[in-house]
Amino acid sequence: MTQISDNTLKVAQQAFDNLMHGFATSNWEPLLNLLTDDFTFWFPIGTYHGLNIGKERAREFFQYVTELFGQTLKLTSLERVTSSETTVVFEFCDEASMLGQPYRNRIAISFDVRNDKICGYREYLGSDGKSN
Amino acid sequence: MTQISDNTLKVAQQAFDNLMHGFATSNWEPLLNLLTDDFTFWFPIGTYHGLNIGKERAREFFQYVTELFGQTLKLTSLERVTSSETTVVFEFCDEASMLGQPYRNRIAISFDVRNDKICGYREYLGSDGKSN
Repeated sequence: MTQISDNTLKVAQQAFDNLMHGFATSNWEPLLNLLTDDFTFWFPIGTYHGLNIGKERAREFFQYVTELFGQTLKLTSLERVTSSETTVVFEFCDEASMLGQPYRNRIAISFDVRNDKICGYREYLGSDGKSN
Repeated sequence: MTQISDNTLKVAQQAFDNLMHGFATSNWEPLLNLLTDDFTFWFPIGTYHGLNIGKERAREFFQYVTELFGQTLKLTSLERVTSSETTVVFEFCDEASMLGQPYRNRIAISFDVRNDKICGYREYLGSDGKSN
């Protein structure tokens, strides 16, 4: 058996909950409060494609997410949660209205945890924004 | 601490190795031999977009992969491995020649393990095929 730190899971689960809270309310502060100052994130497409560095960049990104989705994005299915000592991956399906058009996707997001904060985030797309 | 089955990790690691062997040699039989008869997979884009059912469909898919990449696709970086009791996710970067054009991507693949076989596979794209 391999042992996994419960703290890593707990911090990542809180980050995931805060991410969903951000989608529901447009209040990203609870998520931003969980990020380290040197937080980095990778995003697969569009304006934020590639590596993004810093918490302020993350703040801009989540503002952009709100411009795209308003408060419409909802988790429809949490498919899997996997973890190592330092990383937790959430696979899920979501749906929303994106700039007024129906949006559905399958997503994997991977959080890197350092102590009680998130120091990295990578997002991956499992579908095309039209189906999940 | 949460305990994770070493067998799940071992079977998924073998599947990942066999996947890379398939890319390197165009011999997909070692990977196909690890799949259950009711194996399903999700792919994010193109001809195989969405849910695909059955081992024969998987055989067609890997043949298609060989048509796209020949034997050029190489793992450039294994970024993270996370697991639960039944699922293992590999995050990695790769590069290849795709139909003669340079190809680079960031990928997350998620294997579901049942006993000593893989019963499910989900692939997610972390970049655009041009950078990683």
